[in-house]
Amino acid sequence: MNTSAPGRGRLCVVGLGPGDDALLTEQVRASIASATDAFGYFPYVARLGGMEHLQLHASDNREELERARQALDLAAQGRQVLMLSSGDPGVFAMASAVFEVLESAASEDKARWAAVDIEVQPGITAMLAAAARLGAPLGHDFCTINLSDNLKPAAVIARRIRLAAQADFAMAFYNPCSTSRPEGFVRALTVLREECEPERLICFARNVSRPGETLKVLPLHAVTADMADMRTVVIVGNSLTRQVGKHVYTPRSYGLPAHE
Amino acid sequence: MNTSAPGRGRLCVVGLGPGDDALLTEQVRASIASATDAFGYFPYVARLGGMEHLQLHASDNREELERARQALDLAAQGRQVLMLSSGDPGVFAMASAVFEVLESAASEDKARWAAVDIEVQPGITAMLAAAARLGAPLGHDFCTINLSDNLKPAAVIARRIRLAAQADFAMAFYNPCSTSRPEGFVRALTVLREECEPERLICFARNVSRPGETLKVLPLHAVTADMADMRTVVIVGNSLTRQVGKHVYTPRSYGLPAHE
Repeated sequence: MNTSAPGRGRLCVVGLGPGDDALLTEQVRASIASATDAFGYFPYVARLGGMEHLQLHASDNREELERARQALDLAAQGRQVLMLSSGDPGVFAMASAVFEVLESAASEDKARWAAVDIEVQPGITAMLAAAARLGAPLGHDFCTINLSDNLKPAAVIARRIRLAAQADFAMAFYNPCSTSRPEGFVRALTVLREECEPERLICFARNVSRPGETLKVLPLHAVTADMADMRTVVIVGNSLTRQVGKHVYTPRSYGLPAHE
Repeated sequence: MNTSAPGRGRLCVVGLGPGDDALLTEQVRASIASATDAFGYFPYVARLGGMEHLQLHASDNREELERARQALDLAAQGRQVLMLSSGDPGVFAMASAVFEVLESAASEDKARWAAVDIEVQPGITAMLAAAARLGAPLGHDFCTINLSDNLKPAAVIARRIRLAAQADFAMAFYNPCSTSRPEGFVRALTVLREECEPERLICFARNVSRPGETLKVLPLHAVTADMADMRTVVIVGNSLTRQVGKHVYTPRSYGLPAHE
């Protein structure tokens, strides 16, 4: 099937979920089956290894914009192109990068790429896979914050965490720290300690759905900065989040007597 | 297969996604195939109609706690029980209700239910299905707010929206209004008009992935209260959310020069 399809090309930005293939949707599986090419960060492309109908185009995770340009170029030639994200492509992943490239394109690129059908297909994002393994810590209002200061100022992140804590949202933190940017989670902890009570529950979900998955739940006062790394999603409970048996959950009710 | 399984019972709280069966995960599909019983709100149970291996137990959406008790009771008898949610069970759905029942149970119920294996399996939640159809409006930090004041005071909701706007989060609103509680979205609009510029993009995704799906995107100043109903997820952009062609997206970068 690795022939250039005649006619209209397609760029399908898909979410592979957090790691276990059982968390793929059938929609994404069907898109993989009918594609001719797949672009993505090395480890995501490796998940499609052995599929002989696909040409694989792996690149580094600092090359998102160039990867999007190449994928659009190939789709403009009529090919059926996948852009791979882990989790959900719309949550700190490739979907926004594709639209950034489209918006800022030179006029000749825009003209060529106008013929491409672009579709985004959702996937199970890491925080929801982590929440399910933990119980239901995001069962009430919550927010989702990328702690990396690669693309935004650290002060913006700190202010968001402070306001989110004042609003009593539960929170999910993506990219809590990386080798090149180790300070994200340290800074977040500083704000949480100023805004939240010491017993606030903090959950660390590492390698969710993958080999070596670990779940850890402890009160804020016992948390240390080394508990989060690049493979960890951190979930911060709201003021009512609690444990029942081995599970963590946030009640649906807030500040009202329970119904029923 | 409708015999009481001997041995350990199981309660599996699963997410069916927003409507289209192609958005089911294989994990959930396998759980459906191996279950003996399925509990849930009428329309979710109806999605499993015609599966002869399943005993179906449908109930009204005001009976979540009683439904959870019945499901735990059946699982305690050794049966393989599904608790159905649409979307993701951990986002304003049945997972928290199950843990609420477990926590508040009388001691004899607790003793019986202790033998039940409880597992939560994630699904594609409505806001991420809606975001994918729109483009990538949740591609930067965002929050997720249930606008129903059934289980929390309206003042808490208004305060959360205000703080979220001040933090410049994009927002996804679930349950913007219902027949019995029509005021949620009206109140949210009041806060948004006080905190956001008139050109802020607001997206209405109705019946996502289902027959009759509609997507609507317009600036805050043109929004009217009747644009949202029970079948609508509302996505509020952040201050940088914009349109490129027919898509809506929120850039990854914020307040810093773009890299690459």
